[in-house]
Amino acid sequence: MKANDKILLAHGGGGQLSDSLIHNTILPRLSNETLNALGDSALLDIDGTKLCFTTDSYVVKPLFFNGGDIGKLAVCGTVNDLAVAGARPLVLSLALIIETGFPIADLERILDSIAKTAAEAGVKVVTGDTKTVETGAADKIFINTAGIGKKLDCANLDTSRVKEGDKILVSGTIGDHGMTLISKREGIEFQSTLKSDCAALNSLTVKLLENLKDEIKFLRDPTRGGIAVTLNDIARGSGQSVLIKQSDIPVSPNVQAAADMLGFDILNIANEGKFIAVVSSDAAEKAVAICRSHRLGKDATIIGEIQKCVDVPTVEILTVIGGKRIVQMPYGRELPRIC
Amino acid sequence: MKANDKILLAHGGGGQLSDSLIHNTILPRLSNETLNALGDSALLDIDGTKLCFTTDSYVVKPLFFNGGDIGKLAVCGTVNDLAVAGARPLVLSLALIIETGFPIADLERILDSIAKTAAEAGVKVVTGDTKTVETGAADKIFINTAGIGKKLDCANLDTSRVKEGDKILVSGTIGDHGMTLISKREGIEFQSTLKSDCAALNSLTVKLLENLKDEIKFLRDPTRGGIAVTLNDIARGSGQSVLIKQSDIPVSPNVQAAADMLGFDILNIANEGKFIAVVSSDAAEKAVAICRSHRLGKDATIIGEIQKCVDVPTVEILTVIGGKRIVQMPYGRELPRIC
Repeated sequence: MKANDKILLAHGGGGQLSDSLIHNTILPRLSNETLNALGDSALLDIDGTKLCFTTDSYVVKPLFFNGGDIGKLAVCGTVNDLAVAGARPLVLSLALIIETGFPIADLERILDSIAKTAAEAGVKVVTGDTKTVETGAADKIFINTAGIGKKLDCANLDTSRVKEGDKILVSGTIGDHGMTLISKREGIEFQSTLKSDCAALNSLTVKLLENLKDEIKFLRDPTRGGIAVTLNDIARGSGQSVLIKQSDIPVSPNVQAAADMLGFDILNIANEGKFIAVVSSDAAEKAVAICRSHRLGKDATIIGEIQKCVDVPTVEILTVIGGKRIVQMPYGRELPRIC
Repeated sequence: MKANDKILLAHGGGGQLSDSLIHNTILPRLSNETLNALGDSALLDIDGTKLCFTTDSYVVKPLFFNGGDIGKLAVCGTVNDLAVAGARPLVLSLALIIETGFPIADLERILDSIAKTAAEAGVKVVTGDTKTVETGAADKIFINTAGIGKKLDCANLDTSRVKEGDKILVSGTIGDHGMTLISKREGIEFQSTLKSDCAALNSLTVKLLENLKDEIKFLRDPTRGGIAVTLNDIARGSGQSVLIKQSDIPVSPNVQAAADMLGFDILNIANEGKFIAVVSSDAAEKAVAICRSHRLGKDATIIGEIQKCVDVPTVEILTVIGGKRIVQMPYGRELPRIC
């Protein structure tokens, strides 16, 4: 059996290998029109009611970190997948897989966090499941949440609508979640100054969509694989190229220092409380203003634009020293168990 | 820290300890009207469209067994939770947590099984997620499926409608799934003659409900904890008592032999392709006939009835030797990782 006959960590990393697993192993077997769209959420039409439906498992390590915990992440992650699909999140399911011996006090802390985050995001946990496995058969606790949202009538998100000249907006600083986790795992001293951005974005995305309607052409929360994956998805989905300007990308100095010290490219680092939007050129400044008036978007800014594709759709970055380089789809190895 | 400060295997067993975890730890934190109903599925009303929504994680060991595998189980289990809630299952989500080093050939086999079972059950997998964890951080593969179904207008399932004289129907032989798994794990020789009953029940439940409408008062698939849990739930939910007759309960001789040899009470053993129904006395024979005309209900039979509760609601069994004993809610320890 060759190495590539087995699952590698990178198969779950959100990069090239995840992509290959989805396209070569999963989709050929389960193919249907809804699944094949590979959106953050599936779009369903049940008797004329348009719903979004999504699922995510959370295997983050450590379970508790500055700015959040696995419970908060499990609510925010799924709420955000609905939010960036142009939906108003309504309900969540909650499924726990717990290792025998896990302290009930920790479970209570996680459940309290789930309850608080769900209340803040305006969603209800309506159904659940608990499984236990022997000590050693799982690492402490894994959580799955699936979510249902009501598709907003005003949302018309579709990468095929993305055109040359459209602007690329990021809702705030990038890399905070991933660098907080990896620094804590590596035991880096300055980790206490880092804080995950873990947050439910639906109040901001709904506001943006209700105000700017189809001027917003694409939304995505850049989690695993960071904004590098999201920007490559925009290029691939639209058939256009993407140019971003490094000096315009908001990054906290502590986060940048941690990334530099540990040798990570900040573009590949996971975020859990940010989104990337593609906005028509005319509405771009209005979009920035709407974001900045909301506590979750106060550092929002335009970081680049859509350019005509001359050969294959690519993502390029204009670096601070004036050069240009390609931003590749990351391989997926960088940060296992980040969410 | 005391023993009961930690999660035990029995907390996931579907019995008393699961019950206590749900009522003492989970519900007080996440309480809302829909969740508190603790149905097999949550009943949602979204703009007048009535939906059922459910989730289940699957941690079964071994992954492949006679009559099924973790993939088939992950489809059937969630489809059945929707079916017994009186819904027509429509779509599933599929979330995989995979240990590094897991053979891709095994993953393909599981995905093929998911595809086949979903097609047979008439449901589509519309959204998914894949996470990988380091070797040793999970036992091979865990699967979560959440599902959405359309509530049938004709279904009026509610234990408060259960009345004295109503009949208790089981759709076929009991204990097949659990005894197949435990025998395989224990390496018992006759295990090759046992076969899990794992099946999607929705074609039968929809037929039953469309024909008998509100004569069907309760449906449940007796999985973890077996029919003992389901019958106790009927007693508790209705405030009535339940009397079943041991000689009327269909059990395959091989399954009974395995249970006897290993010292299990067949009433506590999980099923994955059966349901218990409470049917009005007038419609009971018709319900049996409808079941028997379907391949999944050919051994359907009436096993008991609802009796007036004199003190506290209890479940009693009239044994083959003529005695009566209480059927208790099992503690939950019997069969870890059965689904």
